[in-house]
Amino acid sequence: MPKDTIAFTLHLADNALIMSQCLSEWTGHGPALEQDIALTNIALDYLGQSRNFYQHAADIINIQRAMPIFAPGRSYPLQEDDLAYHRLEHQFCNHLLVELPNMHWGQTVLKTFFFAHYQQAVYRHLLQDADLQIAAIAEKSLKEVKYHVKWSNDWILRLGDGTEESYDKMQEALDKVWPYTGELFEATPWNTERLDTEAMQKEWDKNVKAVLQQATLSVPSSVRSQTGGLKGIHTEKMGFILAEMQYLQRVYPDSNW
Amino acid sequence: MPKDTIAFTLHLADNALIMSQCLSEWTGHGPALEQDIALTNIALDYLGQSRNFYQHAADIINIQRAMPIFAPGRSYPLQEDDLAYHRLEHQFCNHLLVELPNMHWGQTVLKTFFFAHYQQAVYRHLLQDADLQIAAIAEKSLKEVKYHVKWSNDWILRLGDGTEESYDKMQEALDKVWPYTGELFEATPWNTERLDTEAMQKEWDKNVKAVLQQATLSVPSSVRSQTGGLKGIHTEKMGFILAEMQYLQRVYPDSNW
Repeated sequence: MPKDTIAFTLHLADNALIMSQCLSEWTGHGPALEQDIALTNIALDYLGQSRNFYQHAADIINIQRAMPIFAPGRSYPLQEDDLAYHRLEHQFCNHLLVELPNMHWGQTVLKTFFFAHYQQAVYRHLLQDADLQIAAIAEKSLKEVKYHVKWSNDWILRLGDGTEESYDKMQEALDKVWPYTGELFEATPWNTERLDTEAMQKEWDKNVKAVLQQATLSVPSSVRSQTGGLKGIHTEKMGFILAEMQYLQRVYPDSNW
Repeated sequence: MPKDTIAFTLHLADNALIMSQCLSEWTGHGPALEQDIALTNIALDYLGQSRNFYQHAADIINIQRAMPIFAPGRSYPLQEDDLAYHRLEHQFCNHLLVELPNMHWGQTVLKTFFFAHYQQAVYRHLLQDADLQIAAIAEKSLKEVKYHVKWSNDWILRLGDGTEESYDKMQEALDKVWPYTGELFEATPWNTERLDTEAMQKEWDKNVKAVLQQATLSVPSSVRSQTGGLKGIHTEKMGFILAEMQYLQRVYPDSNW
């Protein structure tokens, strides 16, 4: 089903792009130069992934003319930039987790930690995807994701099992962010054929909880999952992210370097 | 000189608009309902002033076709919204003071305090302006500004001569914001014929320092003035303000209610 593939590919791209946009806010503000650069590199990895997925989505869309033109001034053939910079908030179908505000360093690390383990699970499944281009991007991205997992695991341990203050901050962040992790495994009409979300969640749960436990942090029990992102219903922050991210292309449509 | 009048009127409009945009961030977040509404009303006053000045600027520009069309898709006759939502950062000539981040309540009050006293001085001078429309807007606005002055004077006294904590925060804010007040009286080719900036500064200085002294706050001595706004050279914050403020019109050009 090409329509499902388009929705799914855009979803993967949106997740990576919004992660990238949020993490890049830290550029020049990291707690130490080395970590500033590490997080900026991770943001850049996500940007690269999003470009690959947007290009692939655009290719399918262009062959099929499968998408109504969604913004004034856009026309076929669509480019990756059309998809990233000219879609509206309700057309983005990223998980809510990725649009959460960075807040303090520990919370940023936690968000990255959850997302890295999620990407590891999803890309592993996609290695066998029938769409060979998706499988190839997943394979390429997995190499990066392994490093993201390692980097964020290290930080969770360091901060959770650190000083009293760092523990308190991490536990507080965990209580805040945890309700946004359930959505990562939500089944939709366009992902059920591709992903075994239950198996993914099991894998994710095991890996994530092992690290959190070692870091002396407690997973909140019985919280209600936040949801909506996959249907284009976003948190307040999303509008601000897009306003900033899309401003240049909105002011100078089709400008390039 | 119509060109000077255009630049001057846009400057007055930009000041009021950016003040309004920043203050309205407090809507729903004020320290008490009454003050939340008070500040929102002040923001609304500024928005009204900016509309009056933009409309007047547009009128002169349209008669003379005096401005190159500055953005794709714009055309004569220009409307107030073109000037507010389609100009670029370097075309805004507001003072840097008005684009300063709100930070805490006390700093927001301080920024409003400085600006209210400034507007009082500038509008008083403009009552005699040769451009009768500018004189009329000044007269109408002065009634609002008197209230802004009173409201912010009260808050400066309450916070400066308040608790130890409120005093510390106000003094710190004063040290930060003061360097942005000198620019309010900067002479430019397009304001010297209209304003006696020296007399205005004297009046402002006297009024402002009387309140600060009563509030037990100390004006920093010999600081270097920040400057650039009148030439379109802005602080980092300005880009974020415009990205958010202009997003709707950039995405849906010419949309209206």
